Amino acid sequence: MIKVGIIGVTGYAGQQLLALLIRHKEVKIEFISSNSYHEKNVSEVYCNYKKYFDKKMISQKEAEKSLKEIDVLFIALPHGLSENITKLALENEVKVIDLGADFRLDSSAEYEKWYGVKHLYPKINQEAIYGLPELNSEKIKISRLIASPGCYPTSIILALAPLLSRQLVIENSIIIDSKSGVSGAGRSLKIESLFAEVNENFKAYSLFKHRHTPEIEQELGKIAKNDVSILFTPHLIPINRGILSTIYIDLKQKLSEEEIYSIYNEFYKDAYFIRINNTLPEIKNVKNTNICEIGIRVDIERKKVIIVSVIDNLIKGAGGQAIQSMNIMFGLDEKEGLEYLSMYL
Amino acid sequence: MIKVGIIGVTGYAGQQLLALLIRHKEVKIEFISSNSYHEKNVSEVYCNYKKYFDKKMISQKEAEKSLKEIDVLFIALPHGLSENITKLALENEVKVIDLGADFRLDSSAEYEKWYGVKHLYPKINQEAIYGLPELNSEKIKISRLIASPGCYPTSIILALAPLLSRQLVIENSIIIDSKSGVSGAGRSLKIESLFAEVNENFKAYSLFKHRHTPEIEQELGKIAKNDVSILFTPHLIPINRGILSTIYIDLKQKLSEEEIYSIYNEFYKDAYFIRINNTLPEIKNVKNTNICEIGIRVDIERKKVIIVSVIDNLIKGAGGQAIQSMNIMFGLDEKEGLEYLSMYL
Amino acid sequence: MIKVGIIGVTGYAGQQLLALLIRHKEVKIEFISSNSYHEKNVSEVYCNYKKYFDKKMISQKEAEKSLKEIDVLFIALPHGLSENITKLALENEVKVIDLGADFRLDSSAEYEKWYGVKHLYPKINQEAIYGLPELNSEKIKISRLIASPGCYPTSIILALAPLLSRQLVIENSIIIDSKSGVSGAGRSLKIESLFAEVNENFKAYSLFKHRHTPEIEQELGKIAKNDVSILFTPHLIPINRGILSTIYIDLKQKLSEEEIYSIYNEFYKDAYFIRINNTLPEIKNVKNTNICEIGIRVDIERKKVIIVSVIDNLIKGAGGQAIQSMNIMFGLDEKEGLEYLSMYL
Amino acid sequence: MIKVGIIGVTGYAGQQLLALLIRHKEVKIEFISSNSYHEKNVSEVYCNYKKYFDKKMISQKEAEKSLKEIDVLFIALPHGLSENITKLALENEVKVIDLGADFRLDSSAEYEKWYGVKHLYPKINQEAIYGLPELNSEKIKISRLIASPGCYPTSIILALAPLLSRQLVIENSIIIDSKSGVSGAGRSLKIESLFAEVNENFKAYSLFKHRHTPEIEQELGKIAKNDVSILFTPHLIPINRGILSTIYIDLKQKLSEEEIYSIYNEFYKDAYFIRINNTLPEIKNVKNTNICEIGIRVDIERKKVIIVSVIDNLIKGAGGQAIQSMNIMFGLDEKEGLEYLSMYL
Repeated sequence: MIKVGIIGVTGYAGQQLLALLIRHKEVKIEFISSNSYHEKNVSEVYCNYKKYFDKKMISQKEAEKSLKEIDVLFIALPHGLSENITKLALENEVKVIDLGADFRLDSSAEYEKWYGVKHLYPKINQEAIYGLPELNSEKIKISRLIASPGCYPTSIILALAPLLSRQLVIENSIIIDSKSGVSGAGRSLKIESLFAEVNENFKAYSLFKHRHTPEIEQELGKIAKNDVSILFTPHLIPINRGILSTIYIDLKQKLSEEEIYSIYNEFYKDAYFIRINNTLPEIKNVKNTNICEIGIRVDIERKKVIIVSVIDNLIKGAGGQAIQSMNIMFGLDEKEGLEYLSMYL
Repeated sequence: MIKVGIIGVTGYAGQQLLALLIRHKEVKIEFISSNSYHEKNVSEVYCNYKKYFDKKMISQKEAEKSLKEIDVLFIALPHGLSENITKLALENEVKVIDLGADFRLDSSAEYEKWYGVKHLYPKINQEAIYGLPELNSEKIKISRLIASPGCYPTSIILALAPLLSRQLVIENSIIIDSKSGVSGAGRSLKIESLFAEVNENFKAYSLFKHRHTPEIEQELGKIAKNDVSILFTPHLIPINRGILSTIYIDLKQKLSEEEIYSIYNEFYKDAYFIRINNTLPEIKNVKNTNICEIGIRVDIERKKVIIVSVIDNLIKGAGGQAIQSMNIMFGLDEKEGLEYLSMYL
Repeated sequence: MIKVGIIGVTGYAGQQLLALLIRHKEVKIEFISSNSYHEKNVSEVYCNYKKYFDKKMISQKEAEKSLKEIDVLFIALPHGLSENITKLALENEVKVIDLGADFRLDSSAEYEKWYGVKHLYPKINQEAIYGLPELNSEKIKISRLIASPGCYPTSIILALAPLLSRQLVIENSIIIDSKSGVSGAGRSLKIESLFAEVNENFKAYSLFKHRHTPEIEQELGKIAKNDVSILFTPHLIPINRGILSTIYIDLKQKLSEEEIYSIYNEFYKDAYFIRINNTLPEIKNVKNTNICEIGIRVDIERKKVIIVSVIDNLIKGAGGQAIQSMNIMFGLDEKEGLEYLSMYL
Repeated sequence: MIKVGIIGVTGYAGQQLLALLIRHKEVKIEFISSNSYHEKNVSEVYCNYKKYFDKKMISQKEAEKSLKEIDVLFIALPHGLSENITKLALENEVKVIDLGADFRLDSSAEYEKWYGVKHLYPKINQEAIYGLPELNSEKIKISRLIASPGCYPTSIILALAPLLSRQLVIENSIIIDSKSGVSGAGRSLKIESLFAEVNENFKAYSLFKHRHTPEIEQELGKIAKNDVSILFTPHLIPINRGILSTIYIDLKQKLSEEEIYSIYNEFYKDAYFIRINNTLPEIKNVKNTNICEIGIRVDIERKKVIIVSVIDNLIKGAGGQAIQSMNIMFGLDEKEGLEYLSMYL
């Protein structure tokens, strides 16, 4: 059994992680921690657990003292709060999977520029592996620190990797129009997250300045082996879960829809959680699952390609993907504890 | 022109009131006040006003100094905050329409019991008229202080008045199962008002202890000329606007559906904003309007009646009804500025 | 392995059943049948299955010829269509679990009265066991024909059984105000099921005449060992899944909230899928699960009790409960394949 | 008074048109026609009208006989059905405002290519004026046949006109990512319009082949005085009303955000229904109004501009805009009957 601790268990990502880990056959949850609700039982905050799973939440201080009891620590905190506990965990030979942004950018300078926070331990940051298992599983296998990707980047990088890795895309042509459900904004109190403000509404936000931008460009650049500069526009959909990204690219050469589909099918032939679909993806196809679904349409004459991808932001975009990395780190089948299909409704 | 001031303009009720008053032909808005956002323009908080109406919001202190400029003051504050400014306004010969709970209960003791606040000026409370125009228009006409009814009570009292006023109902048999849209909870920051918590959910709350209970029993008692004791259970619907109340009563005698419908049609024959409908009411029939729609089903043998009523909680249940009272107080047609029909979608 | 066939797999209940059976470890799905879509693969109708499960859907005619290959047949058809195939299945020594209404009423006369259809084989109807495992597991164990309960009745009967079975309830006092998500109306094409008609709306329907009424009264009567006559009012909530029932009863004697809670805890002490909750139930607590959650509030002086129950209408109210019965019929643990907890969002 | 007839009054666009015309002070509604519901009163189909407005709906045949009684005919039918009645109306000296697609494309060949229908009277088509009042009011004034624009094109053309008309945009760089509420799909019965299919879902559709594409390119081309070739991707949002279009363009020269805003403010300085907003538009800002709101963000170095526009698809995108044209045709103030501000919630 893998002994697990979770920091930040009452946020939406943390809660999703817990819900999945409870049903994971090879996992034993040693502690769960929440700064807002410690000393309470998790079932007092989330009634869905009542009777079926319960545990008192401890403070982060207590969690730090319990690191010796675990094999792996999941951290689901707002950015800027993961470094100290990560250092402690690594010193205790505990592997770390961080669902936040602290270790996603290779460059500490970029991190500071976009997040307004300085890295305390740039060396630790250097060690972190970007936890996108479909692209980095070999590195994940031997890593002790995983930076689990952001939700938007997951939906985008997976959608672009097959074409970019073959250098087929004009790198500065990429326009990404993403739409996310509201759980992506987390459980914090903001007027703009109130039901009556979001419901029957739709909006774009953070044009040219969303913090996932450098993460996307960095990873796409590695795949393309070239600088990639994107336009990225996130929008808010009045639904709980799910991200759909519509991605516009210019090809360097003419390729038919059929040719592109076969590139995708080949690229992802061993990827259990990727579904290449001739029909265009819809969020309900992947809701409540760890699946990323991708569909493609091509205007061969104009060398224009539109790629549409969907994920569940809380699972493939957060808790599920983190578990997928854990499975790989501990030599398990990557799909252990994640074989849910969408219930459609 | 009636010169108007509004206190508490950025809450959902206040905002709705303002939106309606802007289009009211006999009204001039002298000031609007907000404690959270004063010094800002209203269009900075509510972008829908931008270009079409704007005004700097003042603090309540400043509003108090501007009372001489107005004929009527609307107050849309949380309970407990209306008394002082009301006293000041009355001393300045300004009429007052309070959308909050401070003056709705005749008994200051009941008010203290349910709201945990003592009346500072019980005499002022004695003067207040319950602003339900369909029942109290004669009193409203000559009043200088209106306690505009709560949203749930409006949907309930209007639905029961025709039968109660004829003493046809067994008074302690009344069970009221109400369902409200989320704007009823206001614009304040609470975890349980977040989109992701409300959406795809439904719940009952405040069983046996919702603060609208004494207000409903008081007004029903006056109509029935007898003590009325109810069961009242509110629920939260994941929609922005609207209340539907399903009311179960036992009759003292057998009455057919036809007989009851004719009692309702007679009772409300001059009430512009009441629609008696043979079809069962739905919230979309009245959304964005000042209309209360009522439908009735009868089991004649068992002497059981089910009454279903719908209103828009922000209009007939708040801002619209307050304007209806204002129209009556100032000798205007009660429907001035309120003749909107539902847009259905 | 239990060999299974499903008739009516593309309706919402049938689809849910399939989604659960796919992950059931002791089940092998031999055939799936759809009259609307036969000859298509299920993944052509429901994209969420693509890549992970697929099977061509056969017509009912073909299904009839394949009965010998299976141990149990699930039928998820509109009422009136289950009798012939049930007869055939039983003749082939195949057990039958019907998710429709055809075998739920003991009296064929009542069935005809409420559904407008005559029973072709009243004797087969006599044999059917009402598949509510928390109350009837001993009978289910030895049955070969299960009438799986309606969604509303499940939420209501489970909520009332503990008090009724002790004869504590005044039988004609029961008022049931139920609210259901839209999937309860099925996948058939009706104007009133269109998104724009349901969204931002709420309505009551079928007052005094919903077809689940006789089923509820019949089963409550058996529990109470006395005639039970209810008022039952269903409503439509703009959500996909879930039923919340608010139930009002008069007690024969004074009982405190604590006493009633201990009656419920005792009654359901071995019921894995029942959660008695001191907090009031919300639909999100049970969405995507086979759990029925129950909360209670009491006015001891007036001997009034309000019971609130929630279920997922497609799981505990349809596909999940049918599998629970199957598990019992085949000697498995009743929770096999059903151990999902709600994901809350 | 302008005497008006409406064909196709029970669709969502027709119904919206009627709701607005009822409150229009200079309009008398002579007849309303519906092929699905003729002989019924409109209030039997739309309960929101009951008591406040009613009229028996007539068949199209009867409408044709009543053309002499009216000054202007509104047609809100699916494409392909407007030509014959338009010819008849014009022969009767009745002006025509068609909300459908029949007269929007100048080229009958293009119409046939995209809609699969041949024009019966290409000469009549030649006469039609594209009813976008912000751009074409002089022509509308003297026209007798208006092709009222599609909903997507309205949101897009208004957003691009200021820059295109100054030849500042690289014409083949335009990428339009639009998102529409569900009422845009009309009231016809389709599985994919059912509540449970749309709710909690989001999808793209009709990539490279949506029928609004040629209409957009035609009108943008006229403005730019050059061929314009776009990428247009529509998506479906689970809300009732509203369209948000996110538009990506490459500029021919460097322009700052400030410069672009001043171009927009100048271009639309007399346009009552256009709101240029420094804040990014949200659908709730314009819901239930005839307003188009536009916001802009610029990456000056890369010469990239993102324009975001929002409209209410049923009002500015259908019924409201048609009335705006009527006002202009009959010499009224263009805003007569259309001065609604959004109620925000």
